[in-house]
Amino acid sequence: MRFFYLVGAFFLYTFSVVGQNNVERWERFEITLAGPQTGNPFVDVELAAEFSNASEKVKVAGFYDGNGRYKVRFMPRKTGEWKYKTISNNKSLNGKAGVFSCVEPGKDNHGPVQVADTYHFKYTDGKRYYPFGTTLYAWTHQPEGLEEITLKTLANAPFNKVRMCVFPKYYSHVENEPPYYPYVKKSETKDAKGKPKFQWDLSRFEPAFFQHLEKRIDDLKKLGIEADVIIFHPYDKGHWGFDSLGKENDLKYIRYLTARLASFRNVWWSLANEFDYVKTKPRADWDIYTKAVVNADPYGHLCSIHNGSVYYDNWKPEFTHVSIQNGSTVEDFGRATLLKDVFFRPMIYDEVCYEGDLQQRWGHLSGEEMTEAFWQGVIAGTYVTHGETYKNAGDTIFWAKGGRLIGSSPARIGFLRRILEEAPGPLELSDPWKDHHTSRADSSYYLMYLGKNMQPEWEFSLPRKGGPKAGRKFKVEVIDTWNMTVDERPEVFEIAETNDYRIYDKKRTSIRLPMTPYLALRIKEYRE
Amino acid sequence: MRFFYLVGAFFLYTFSVVGQNNVERWERFEITLAGPQTGNPFVDVELAAEFSNASEKVKVAGFYDGNGRYKVRFMPRKTGEWKYKTISNNKSLNGKAGVFSCVEPGKDNHGPVQVADTYHFKYTDGKRYYPFGTTLYAWTHQPEGLEEITLKTLANAPFNKVRMCVFPKYYSHVENEPPYYPYVKKSETKDAKGKPKFQWDLSRFEPAFFQHLEKRIDDLKKLGIEADVIIFHPYDKGHWGFDSLGKENDLKYIRYLTARLASFRNVWWSLANEFDYVKTKPRADWDIYTKAVVNADPYGHLCSIHNGSVYYDNWKPEFTHVSIQNGSTVEDFGRATLLKDVFFRPMIYDEVCYEGDLQQRWGHLSGEEMTEAFWQGVIAGTYVTHGETYKNAGDTIFWAKGGRLIGSSPARIGFLRRILEEAPGPLELSDPWKDHHTSRADSSYYLMYLGKNMQPEWEFSLPRKGGPKAGRKFKVEVIDTWNMTVDERPEVFEIAETNDYRIYDKKRTSIRLPMTPYLALRIKEYRE
Repeated sequence: MRFFYLVGAFFLYTFSVVGQNNVERWERFEITLAGPQTGNPFVDVELAAEFSNASEKVKVAGFYDGNGRYKVRFMPRKTGEWKYKTISNNKSLNGKAGVFSCVEPGKDNHGPVQVADTYHFKYTDGKRYYPFGTTLYAWTHQPEGLEEITLKTLANAPFNKVRMCVFPKYYSHVENEPPYYPYVKKSETKDAKGKPKFQWDLSRFEPAFFQHLEKRIDDLKKLGIEADVIIFHPYDKGHWGFDSLGKENDLKYIRYLTARLASFRNVWWSLANEFDYVKTKPRADWDIYTKAVVNADPYGHLCSIHNGSVYYDNWKPEFTHVSIQNGSTVEDFGRATLLKDVFFRPMIYDEVCYEGDLQQRWGHLSGEEMTEAFWQGVIAGTYVTHGETYKNAGDTIFWAKGGRLIGSSPARIGFLRRILEEAPGPLELSDPWKDHHTSRADSSYYLMYLGKNMQPEWEFSLPRKGGPKAGRKFKVEVIDTWNMTVDERPEVFEIAETNDYRIYDKKRTSIRLPMTPYLALRIKEYRE
Repeated sequence: MRFFYLVGAFFLYTFSVVGQNNVERWERFEITLAGPQTGNPFVDVELAAEFSNASEKVKVAGFYDGNGRYKVRFMPRKTGEWKYKTISNNKSLNGKAGVFSCVEPGKDNHGPVQVADTYHFKYTDGKRYYPFGTTLYAWTHQPEGLEEITLKTLANAPFNKVRMCVFPKYYSHVENEPPYYPYVKKSETKDAKGKPKFQWDLSRFEPAFFQHLEKRIDDLKKLGIEADVIIFHPYDKGHWGFDSLGKENDLKYIRYLTARLASFRNVWWSLANEFDYVKTKPRADWDIYTKAVVNADPYGHLCSIHNGSVYYDNWKPEFTHVSIQNGSTVEDFGRATLLKDVFFRPMIYDEVCYEGDLQQRWGHLSGEEMTEAFWQGVIAGTYVTHGETYKNAGDTIFWAKGGRLIGSSPARIGFLRRILEEAPGPLELSDPWKDHHTSRADSSYYLMYLGKNMQPEWEFSLPRKGGPKAGRKFKVEVIDTWNMTVDERPEVFEIAETNDYRIYDKKRTSIRLPMTPYLALRIKEYRE
């Protein structure tokens, strides 16, 4: 390793600045500069760069990446020529200038995900994004082989978002030491009980840790998956102490992390998982942390905070969407919409218990229950995140370490994702206080979820509010959400005149339904 | 009338200031001053007074009460000697000083209601206040006789809060002209269709209107009822135009209203009913109105805003509690708690549809449904407001005009109120995400609501979180919430050791339940 460092250092000193000539819109432009290795570069050296095109000027922070290498990263949001110039308190890093060209994005590059239509999301290029996330808290702190298996699993899974912690997690089912630590280890001792005690040099980040994290975020990007990066979490129990570094170190860590990651287009900021369980940080400090993240991010990545049992002030302007833990919200009809309507921003029920077989009550949803939770959420115009906690012998628990998925819900979640992506737009309940089954994209498209109760027949009936005018015609598909079948019915329904709260078919036609739970109806305008 | 005015004026000019010598704590101290009648006293004259005792100084606005009388009202919150001195731009009103004594409150005077324990209420003297409100939007705009009937009804009803509009209401079932108008009428014409058109002098309030309102608020006070005073509402339809006076007149009205009413200890401010249906006021203006009310109120009366179909920003610091319209929140288990947990302040579901027989879907809850709504709310640690909309022949609709109550829910609401007032303190769900039936005041008192489903037996079982330790003993009363009976069961249950999420009786004893819907269980510690 020492030999490699020397070679690297030699190579670096032969140029003063390295950057690409071309970069796709919303891709990462990176300049690498050679600079001092003496002293403490993390403390002594300040580095930033100003990027400008004809109309815009963006200042971004740089960071020390170890071995005398300094980097500044930038995500251009407009095509065309860009210039940059570095600013540093170190002569060798200051005033370095260059130009590059921002070119049209490639076909799988739709830009960062943004809020759209108040409650929903779009990629920056306008393509719809419906979050179907999963939870992989500590997947990047596992042995190389396991991480590769996780990526293969994700390549074949329906998920387009992953909730993942920056810091390693120390918790039941995940107590292994990670390959990398975020800080340079000064020493490791053992306490009276033989438990390891770590002493960190909190003035020195470990670049390899962050480089590895970045590689994994890029791996997710290649799979079209957004990385919902959890900046703080409470799962430490005094093992490493990363949950209790003190406010000054926390803010340094935020500056370093955002300097490294803000240019990654698939990054979302999740200030914390279960912020209220991080007992070392008072509630008032989360406002400071949140502002630190948002102020350090020139691109306005999506940003949220996730609760344990007490909600945070999700209406604060820094949060782009709401990330809620509360399984009961998507357990039954009429609930998911209640919280959504409060915040006027997208609602993701990011933790609703997990499909699995753990003893703990948050860890043993059946596949049916997990699937039902997704349908309850989607029908209400909200989104739901998956997680799997089967303690399957010889393997790992997906929710913690990653590995393979064995649950029955992911296939059904994929089926729902396809249905939603085929819709003309995002869903909203048509009549949210009175009909908790019927959502719509517009007056030509309804998706109605019937839940676990079975009913022998369904009479054509929709909420009148915003609904189709008399004379318009519809056909119905019966969807079995569990068996993943779609059965188009031959009946053509014609909307009758009405003054009622609901609209009906002219002939009051009903259709027979199979005696199966978890059915849905897709009701689409029919043009002969 | 003219003769009376002259006499009054003569009498007034014989003294310069009149005030009581003694006033109860939290009662109204009022000084009356004689002043100019020429010009426009509402516009020309500014009047305030500074009240001070040994430790406190409070400045309050005065107001013109017609006929050359000017008033300043004050609610002393501390016993002992108080001094005051007036401040005015009119010589005859300026610098008037006096003293009075604030004495101990009488036995029915507990002071204004305040927030207590985050989600609940207390009178200022510490007595618990559990809101059991009803809705009487336009009851003070009816003929004298009907208003007196309403007061008699309230004297025998279980309600301790009334939601009532300052401005008259023009809406279905209440289209009569009120005896008083808030502004001086310049003229009244008729449009092409024969509908009256009013021209108001918006620079002159009509003191008689406000004097009448005040009399009714005092009538409520005598009955121990809080007046939830609705400052704006949308029910005008261009008839009087009181919903569209313009921002400047709205703010003048707020100043006048608060100067008159802030000293009434049973007043709550409700900025609006269905604020979002007041189409003439943009959403941003409600912040201005709210701040105007709160800044003009030196006593910190309870303050909220009530929505139509879109919620306001109930987390804003001016609001002491949340006043929500949404019937679906208390229709089924697991809902009422969801919105409550967002705001960290008391939640009153102030409009959950009404018991009645109207065609409109918000106006035909059965008595059972209205009663169920109250239980759903109370079990979740929230509060619910009643309203009645029976279009009973020959009478009036209580919800609009007042009169008599004919519904079946008020008696049951009174029964629930007594149960809650007998509890050792306010209720909270014990395990809000998992058990939506079981609330508790402390580990010795549980109230469990079973809802409309019937079950033949109940096995003793409570959430473990915060629950009683092993060895403690309990007895159970079976409450029929509809038939208003309480049946104490002989069984004594003893808490067993457990590591589960729930605690059980040592012998796993069950009790038989009657095959009746709407049962509740009151589970209280038993000491032999």
